[in-house]
Amino acid sequence: MTFDYAARRARLAGLLPAHEVHALLVTSPVNVRYLTGLTSSNAAVLIRADGTALLATDNRYIEAARRLDVPSAEASDVAGRLAAPGTGIEAASMSVAAYRRLGDGLVPLGPVVEVLRAVKDEAELELIRTACAITDQAFADVCPRIAPGMTEREVAGLLERRMAELGADKPAFDTIVASGENGAIPHHTPTSRELRAGDLVTMDFGARYQGYHADMTRTVSLGPPAGWQREVYDLVAAAQQAGRHALAPGARAGEVDEAARSVIEGAGHGGHFRHGLGHGVGLEIHEEPFLGPSRTGRLEDRVPITVEPGVYLPGRGGVRIEDTLVTREGGPELFTKTTKELLAL
Amino acid sequence: MTFDYAARRARLAGLLPAHEVHALLVTSPVNVRYLTGLTSSNAAVLIRADGTALLATDNRYIEAARRLDVPSAEASDVAGRLAAPGTGIEAASMSVAAYRRLGDGLVPLGPVVEVLRAVKDEAELELIRTACAITDQAFADVCPRIAPGMTEREVAGLLERRMAELGADKPAFDTIVASGENGAIPHHTPTSRELRAGDLVTMDFGARYQGYHADMTRTVSLGPPAGWQREVYDLVAAAQQAGRHALAPGARAGEVDEAARSVIEGAGHGGHFRHGLGHGVGLEIHEEPFLGPSRTGRLEDRVPITVEPGVYLPGRGGVRIEDTLVTREGGPELFTKTTKELLAL
Repeated sequence: MTFDYAARRARLAGLLPAHEVHALLVTSPVNVRYLTGLTSSNAAVLIRADGTALLATDNRYIEAARRLDVPSAEASDVAGRLAAPGTGIEAASMSVAAYRRLGDGLVPLGPVVEVLRAVKDEAELELIRTACAITDQAFADVCPRIAPGMTEREVAGLLERRMAELGADKPAFDTIVASGENGAIPHHTPTSRELRAGDLVTMDFGARYQGYHADMTRTVSLGPPAGWQREVYDLVAAAQQAGRHALAPGARAGEVDEAARSVIEGAGHGGHFRHGLGHGVGLEIHEEPFLGPSRTGRLEDRVPITVEPGVYLPGRGGVRIEDTLVTREGGPELFTKTTKELLAL
Repeated sequence: MTFDYAARRARLAGLLPAHEVHALLVTSPVNVRYLTGLTSSNAAVLIRADGTALLATDNRYIEAARRLDVPSAEASDVAGRLAAPGTGIEAASMSVAAYRRLGDGLVPLGPVVEVLRAVKDEAELELIRTACAITDQAFADVCPRIAPGMTEREVAGLLERRMAELGADKPAFDTIVASGENGAIPHHTPTSRELRAGDLVTMDFGARYQGYHADMTRTVSLGPPAGWQREVYDLVAAAQQAGRHALAPGARAGEVDEAARSVIEGAGHGGHFRHGLGHGVGLEIHEEPFLGPSRTGRLEDRVPITVEPGVYLPGRGGVRIEDTLVTREGGPELFTKTTKELLAL
């Protein structure tokens, strides 16, 4: 898969005058990759408003850099090689230490490349679609093997290994498996707790495929669900559906969040859903745009994003249901296709 | 495995007067984990010179935080909750954006927790030893399956899957498999290039086990090595041995680097070895201390570290040999035990 890196750099160059800089020093590794194709832990690229660019990386990566369609220079201090007074820097990713070393006259900017990256081209969407298909298939293959007595960590291992076998680069993030009362912890790290009949088990995981991420959560029941479990599940499923239906180019991020959140609040569980509704996915697992109560930006077309409401009851457990979808003019396209019926394993 | 987090916080508190701060705001996620046991993408801990501490994290992690032996507060802006004028901040990991949001009066500091982390206790060493044993075993199990026609990416996948089966949390870093002329790129990303008879193949990989990392590189030959391949291999092996023998508590980092580098320079290949000799390993794959020509610090006892010289010949290929070892008073303990004989597969 090859991308049109020169076109991306040209789009970025066109944005710089509005940020009142003549050049942007891009140091975030994923942004460097997006603009040049170079995957490196020590690289920077200077994008000038006139459309020219210069990539700097150290001797470990310079051979790879020289194969790209952008001029490159070898340096160990890559940012120092490219910085000049009046240059914009990426304030969200540059460290205080690096900024102080670079000296005066730099202009800290908010997200610039990240905003460009939010809207994907069809080649990027195809990679995310594949990452999500691997995720669905891993869930389908692992579900029949989940049984009481297995530990959370074992379930996480099964999911991650199956995704690797199906062609994933790696897991998109550290897999969450939260069973029983651990389900009340939204970002639980899998433990040696053994699954028990009567548990709800929340699995939040995804594949990375050629650098692009998938993100899906399903909550299943071990055995027939109790009344309260079914009730919470149905509530979260209704909220998740409302959130998905609100996804559209032009919609405000806060409105999409509200569409789902109001369902949960209406049932008296507002205090049990205290994270944002979702986030963009792409070269990073969490990227622009973010769906949350205070988010004012509007969604565009071709923005892959998650919708993932949850209800967490301290000491008892929780439910979260999450899909990765992409905004489309005719209604969102669903990438994660696993059923959202409550599965009783 | 439980660590004595309170003792770690007390050691850190004792260092603060020398840095002329009354408290340190720790925001690096791995440093927060080291000091509290909390694994979170949004947490901070304030360590005061009087030995008290306060952990802040958001509602996704607060349940987990409350189970720890340190007072905690819920906040979404975790650094903002804890920062006050005169507080030290971690300049290497805090972003410019976060620093500017926090307002004036903060004191940017260099590595403080990182220096503490360099010296491991025996419980930490046992985890690194296990991570290295998994790495060795995966290499032993995968080697017989490597053959001409396989792609670099397939070999990387085999190594990563085998490590997972053997109990790794995940790969310690993105596995490098560099064959033939790609071996001239020290940090090559595996491609669909098919291995061919006559290739040297460099594999740089490791397991992460309970958060602790292993790092090993071996270069093998597909079929009998050519004269130049054997020559370069023997040179790198001799340099690697010299580096290992120079590892000792009290040795200067630059001297260890020089012990290996001078062997390569003596053979006229100094220009083909242009990265540092090694780095500490622990909760991060690259951490303090670093071995390089300009490094002046002295090694201490119980410091796990890599020794990884290489010779890279553009257009032809390369050799790197790397072990993870730990400094000991009686001589280093070798953690990665795979043979360093040139294997002809």
